[in-house]
Amino acid sequence: MTRPTLVSLANELGVSRQTVSNVINAPHLVRPETRERVQKAITESGYRPNVAAQALRNQRSRTIGMRILPASDGINGAIMDRFLHHLVAECQELGYNLMLFTATDERDEVAQARELFERGSIDGAVLTGTHADDRRPAELAELGIPCAAFGRPWGKVEQADHIWVDVDGRAGTRAATRHLLSLGHTRIGFIGWPRGSESGDDRRAGWSEAMTEAGIEGWEQWQADGEDGTPTGLVSMQRLEELGVEGVVCASDSLALGAREAIRRRCTESHFGELPVIGFDNTPVAAAITMSSIAQPVERCAQLLASALVHDLDPKSRGRALQPDERLVVPVLAPRSIELPPVR
Amino acid sequence: MTRPTLVSLANELGVSRQTVSNVINAPHLVRPETRERVQKAITESGYRPNVAAQALRNQRSRTIGMRILPASDGINGAIMDRFLHHLVAECQELGYNLMLFTATDERDEVAQARELFERGSIDGAVLTGTHADDRRPAELAELGIPCAAFGRPWGKVEQADHIWVDVDGRAGTRAATRHLLSLGHTRIGFIGWPRGSESGDDRRAGWSEAMTEAGIEGWEQWQADGEDGTPTGLVSMQRLEELGVEGVVCASDSLALGAREAIRRRCTESHFGELPVIGFDNTPVAAAITMSSIAQPVERCAQLLASALVHDLDPKSRGRALQPDERLVVPVLAPRSIELPPVR
Repeated sequence: MTRPTLVSLANELGVSRQTVSNVINAPHLVRPETRERVQKAITESGYRPNVAAQALRNQRSRTIGMRILPASDGINGAIMDRFLHHLVAECQELGYNLMLFTATDERDEVAQARELFERGSIDGAVLTGTHADDRRPAELAELGIPCAAFGRPWGKVEQADHIWVDVDGRAGTRAATRHLLSLGHTRIGFIGWPRGSESGDDRRAGWSEAMTEAGIEGWEQWQADGEDGTPTGLVSMQRLEELGVEGVVCASDSLALGAREAIRRRCTESHFGELPVIGFDNTPVAAAITMSSIAQPVERCAQLLASALVHDLDPKSRGRALQPDERLVVPVLAPRSIELPPVR
Repeated sequence: MTRPTLVSLANELGVSRQTVSNVINAPHLVRPETRERVQKAITESGYRPNVAAQALRNQRSRTIGMRILPASDGINGAIMDRFLHHLVAECQELGYNLMLFTATDERDEVAQARELFERGSIDGAVLTGTHADDRRPAELAELGIPCAAFGRPWGKVEQADHIWVDVDGRAGTRAATRHLLSLGHTRIGFIGWPRGSESGDDRRAGWSEAMTEAGIEGWEQWQADGEDGTPTGLVSMQRLEELGVEGVVCASDSLALGAREAIRRRCTESHFGELPVIGFDNTPVAAAITMSSIAQPVERCAQLLASALVHDLDPKSRGRALQPDERLVVPVLAPRSIELPPVR
């Protein structure tokens, strides 16, 4: 017989994990009949919550934990830094603090969250950088640690029962592509990441959709991919220009920056305007070089996520549950350079 | 008679604030004779530490608190974001977590830190953005909250007795100016912030020193200043070019970015190489546009600061006290563009 857990007990009894957790930690929140039934099952199952941890748990920390990744090049990390600023503000608005920790990998991340949770330092956790086969939400649920993810449960959006919010990358690249089409460009390319990266495939899909919808032929060739960064953008753009591409949408500002450099090297006599390049993430770099970019509404994401997690932690708080249709937040194009109609 | 405080008691007894605090919170750390003497004075003075808070205080949180500012344009905030990443890592290395909070102003910052400290959520605080007449270190000391500042106590470096680490901005601009001088440029200008901003004056001083040292005449005119940002950099550079300036050192990457834009607008036929511009902070933007910039060694600062604060919180920890000569950390020039010798 396997050791009983919050989740196995909940499944057995046909109640939610939260209900079992409440019977242990906040019995006053549970209807007497349910409380009695769950309490009985707990006793019979031999389930033993950590006693010292429980004692601490009764004293709510009103703190949410989040792993922070090492400092990056500042282009790709910029979005997460902005998310962090907004998340702290939103949590505080709801009476919660944010505690940061580092971890060597996702396994360690769960271990760290568990330790903080068990010693009563955090009430729940925020996850970032979700991906297919991401085991963190299930592992945290198993440990009874409430969590909310910035990033969808790739591959199992329907089945996942944890809280999540994500940016609809596909809608962003679709809008950017349509924008270039509306200016009269037709040969629009895409520079992205190798197939298999979930958010990369999602961003590529937005471009494909817009090109298909416009009824343009031969667009399938006008794409290139590689590791994120300016070198990939540069080489890709050189290749796409040879194919006659007259504008590109990119999966990141780093790639877009490389594409701009390729164009700059070719035409030293004029400004960048000749051939439009649209980046993704609307980083400070994009703003500084007046490059159009797709902006992730991270403030809105932080708001929704903090509110939903706090509601989950304390239904009497000012937080509120997420509506399913709020989970995918649509980005907006930040147009900067003047995307001129093509010269024929 | 004013209400006795930790600090007034310490002064009266000729012991440190930490000793008085230890007698209350960790008496085993204090020598018996001292302990008795301080205990007696505390009783006689009528000093009443908050009892509920004391109870919580005996349970160390091993957490450090820090205010996080709202998300900025990502150029000026980039340094603080990098500092934050490193600070979390360094704290964790020493067994501490970092808790973030927001505040409306410095008064509110102290109030928030106090509340977190009194309910036992943090053991100490990290301050950033220090300035002359900064009352936070004294106010926190008065409340018995250990603190460490990233930023020097401007105007009272000698008198301040709290922990601090800062970047030696003057040494940075001096090195950058000498670098341009060594390439044969002589008419080197400076674009900074209006006089009275401590770090701005400090960065200007490094340029003045190098120009004086080189025995170049008339350099005093080759300076401009204004609110931080690309517009100031652009207008300033246009003016300095009229004065025949052939290279500039700037107080920030935003200013440098504006200066580069002024040069770009003037010479559309070639690349940026003609006239060297050196920024400050070595932000991702500088790297992206291959602009030289003065790099603040924030990782080193975070390391020193975390170690000194943790040592102050717990002398038996792996932290260590700062040596006075470690407090000013010298930045390094990150040379990127090829600063060509001047064309005569």
